[in-house]
Parts: sequence; structure tokens; C-alpha cells
Amino acid sequence: MSHAADPSHPRYKSLLARGKLEEAAEAGMLAASALIAHGRGEAFDYLLGEITTESAARATKEAAARLAAAERGIISFNGNTMALASDDLLRCAALAGADVEINIFYRTPERMLALMSFLEDAKVRIRNSTPQGINDDGWGKMVDSVRLLGASPDGRIPGLEGPRANCHSDGMLAADVLLVPLEDGDRCEALVAMGVDVIVIDLNPMSRSAQMATVTVVDEISRFAENLFEELKNPEIVNHNWDNSAILQSALDCINDNLKKG
Amino acid sequence: MSHAADPSHPRYKSLLARGKLEEAAEAGMLAASALIAHGRGEAFDYLLGEITTESAARATKEAAARLAAAERGIISFNGNTMALASDDLLRCAALAGADVEINIFYRTPERMLALMSFLEDAKVRIRNSTPQGINDDGWGKMVDSVRLLGASPDGRIPGLEGPRANCHSDGMLAADVLLVPLEDGDRCEALVAMGVDVIVIDLNPMSRSAQMATVTVVDEISRFAENLFEELKNPEIVNHNWDNSAILQSALDCINDNLKKG
Repeated sequence: MSHAADPSHPRYKSLLARGKLEEAAEAGMLAASALIAHGRGEAFDYLLGEITTESAARATKEAAARLAAAERGIISFNGNTMALASDDLLRCAALAGADVEINIFYRTPERMLALMSFLEDAKVRIRNSTPQGINDDGWGKMVDSVRLLGASPDGRIPGLEGPRANCHSDGMLAADVLLVPLEDGDRCEALVAMGVDVIVIDLNPMSRSAQMATVTVVDEISRFAENLFEELKNPEIVNHNWDNSAILQSALDCINDNLKKG
Repeated sequence: MSHAADPSHPRYKSLLARGKLEEAAEAGMLAASALIAHGRGEAFDYLLGEITTESAARATKEAAARLAAAERGIISFNGNTMALASDDLLRCAALAGADVEINIFYRTPERMLALMSFLEDAKVRIRNSTPQGINDDGWGKMVDSVRLLGASPDGRIPGLEGPRANCHSDGMLAADVLLVPLEDGDRCEALVAMGVDVIVIDLNPMSRSAQMATVTVVDEISRFAENLFEELKNPEIVNHNWDNSAILQSALDCINDNLKKG
């Protein structure tokens, strides 16, 4: 069913990602809207040249700095994030001392169960494979300390209606830095209104989430997660004069340049 | 489950379309890849301003001219086409004296059955509602004459592998004008190689299908289908000097302009 068998195909990685999404959909992890959202991302990634641009790399450094310096960092997971970047983002949580919280737009008990069980498996998997340059014993402890939240939310994000407001009071509600990949606009706005640092990963530099975030990384989630892990090994200090609008403009300029090349 | 309840929402039509796709997916009419493809289209439509551009309107006129002048016209349907524009495209087939052929990338007996039954219902529905300005009796005859092909393909598109090559020898293989909305690149290339007029509807002006077609309409399929029906009431004559590359460039220019506006 997949076209992704041939690594020499010019769009190999994109087709591989599509295959992962299709598998996750079959496993009941995704709503139909999640697949449509992935397609929107694909189009923007295509326009960006399917590479991590220089400005996205800078934003990733800033994301690492803020996550590493956080008192309580949370990495939010939804179905697409999990299908595309679960292992690398769990490794990032371990390295940054952050926790993980599942939060999805269309919350059903079945989907939450499928996601939680996928994440628990992923945690075991990454614990059993220490990344290069990291002490085995230290790694085990770091992975063990990552809490997997989301199953029994006891709080609500202020200003949001419905089940997508659900969250953990000792998770999202207590965090000072939130990494929210592939976030919807309303929820991003509500999180920003909580007065915390919100780091968004979004391939559309014009989306409401991208526009409202404290730090926006305009990059594909699996490339971002790999890069973030490298940056977290040796994070820079937080830039309190971070100019996020310059990052967004740079992404737009890049798309424009690619379109001119036709 | 839908956000599309409020017609004053700035993206009402886009959300409505998304809802239709989600319903079609639940009815077993769509592969996961079809939802992803819709998302890619959404992103390009967003960049085009979610309107029919002047150059898309010109290409629609040319599509109507060629379909009306065809000896044997075929309108190809896949799952997304059906979810978004079945009724209007069936009306177009009736008015143009064309036939309809279902052709999908991931052909399974269940999906073909779901699509064929959806199309048969749609045919009854449009027969029972004569469009404005058309004679009741004439309309009934025009609708009756539209053949719904696809269920028992007995031919193959030359140069294509696998089930997506399947087609009807008295349908696609015998046509002089093919309207193929939302077509994949390989299949479009094979159809063009057959030496017939291929009209493609594609929101991405850089896609292989868009680049290879005889006439490319860079527009959203439901807007296109509505416009095509109007044009078919009074079609122009075929322009044998049609410059398709100018149409594609015009769509790129439009996206560029919208991106500059931010």
C-alpha cells in the first residue's frame, strides 16, 4: 500500500511519513481531521523544500534553551506527533527533564487508550537504547523520570470549551514552558493567555498557532524532534529578546523564493 | 464533530468540505491517503485565497468548450471528487453528453461498491431536480444517458502498473476528452501519453498532473464543478492555441501575491 519502498525516490521521507500516518489511522490513533491536517503540513513542507531552513534551526536552538531552562516543561502529544516523532520527543523529554501530556482535539476513550498504550511502549523502547554519548545508567534514570500524563485530566485550560480544554493540573496547568507540536489555533491562543512560554511546531507560518506562539519552529515534526534532541545535549541560554516575527517572515520569504523557482 | 455549523465563520466552506470528507471516510469511500491529499489541497486553496481566480475561470471556460465539443467525453470520479462535487459533476456529464467512470488509486471491492452505490443515488437525486432554465423532459433524458462506469473494467491504461491502470474499453480508453479531477501524477502522465485531451483540476499548480495536463484548472473541485455547469449551458469554441503554462504561472503569481500580503 506504500510508495515509500524506494529510498532513492525524491520524496522518500515524505512518503514514509504518510505511511506512518496511514498505519496510525488504522490503529485507531487518529481522527479523519488529523490526516487532513497532515496533508496541509505536507503542502507547506513541499513549499519549504522539505528541509530544515536556517531560521527553523535557530528557532529549534531557542526551543531547546527554553525547555532546558524550564522549571516545569511539558511536551504535548497528539496522534500525529506520536505517529511521526514519539521516540525522539520522548528522548527530548528525558534529556530536558520534562514531562509528556497527551492532548487531542477529538477525545474518545478508545483513542486515548490507543495513544497511551503506544506511548508506554515507546518509553520502554527508548529506555532500552541509550543514545550515543550518554551514560547508560544516567539515561535509564532520565527516561524513568518522564511522566506520561493525559489519561485522567483533573484540570481545564481557562477560556476553552469542550473536551480539548481537559488537562492535568500538575501537568500543563503547572508548566512554565509548553512545547505544543501541531496545535490548533484556539488551544494555542488559550495556552498563550495562561502567560507561559509556548513553543509551537507548525509548517504553516501564517497559521494562528504559528503567529501567536512565543517561539515558532516552522519545520516538519520529525526533523524538528531529531534536531531538538541534539540541541538539548548542549543547550544555549534563553534569548529574552527573541524576535518571533522575524522567524515567521523568514519562513514566508523561503516559500516565496521556492515558488519563484517554480 | 464539525466546526462548520456557523455560516459566518470565515472558513465556513473549507470546514464544510472537511466535514464531507470525514463523512465519506466513515462510509468507507476513502483511503487514508485521500484525506491527506485533501489536506494538501486545503493548504494550496488557502494560499490561493479560497476563491476562483480569473485564470481558473478562463481555464474552466476552456474545459467546458472541450467537454462540449468532445466526441466521447469522460468525467473521472474518485472518492474525494464524489464526496465534494458528485451532484454538480453528474449534472455536467448530463449537459455535456459525457459519461462517468470511477477510478481510484487503492481499489478494493468494498470501496468500489460504496462509491458506485453513492453515485447511483446521486444520479437519481439530480434527475429529480431539473436545474433552472432547462426543460424537465429534456433533463430527464440527458441524465438517463449518462453511463456510470467503473464496476467492471475490461481494459488497461497503457504504461501503468497495478489496479489503477484498470479502466473501461468503452469508457476512458475510447474517449477523446478526459476530465480527471484530483488525479495522481503517474496516471495523468499515462493518460496524456494516450494522445487525448486531459483536463486536470488541481490546487497545486506545481504538481506533475497540473504540469502535464492539456488544460489545468487550479481551483477547488466544488467551486469548479459549479462553474463548469454554468459554462456548459453556453460553451465557447475550443481554443486550439491554449497556453496552459500561462495559466499555471498565473496561479503561482497569485499564491506569491497572497504570501506577500502575509
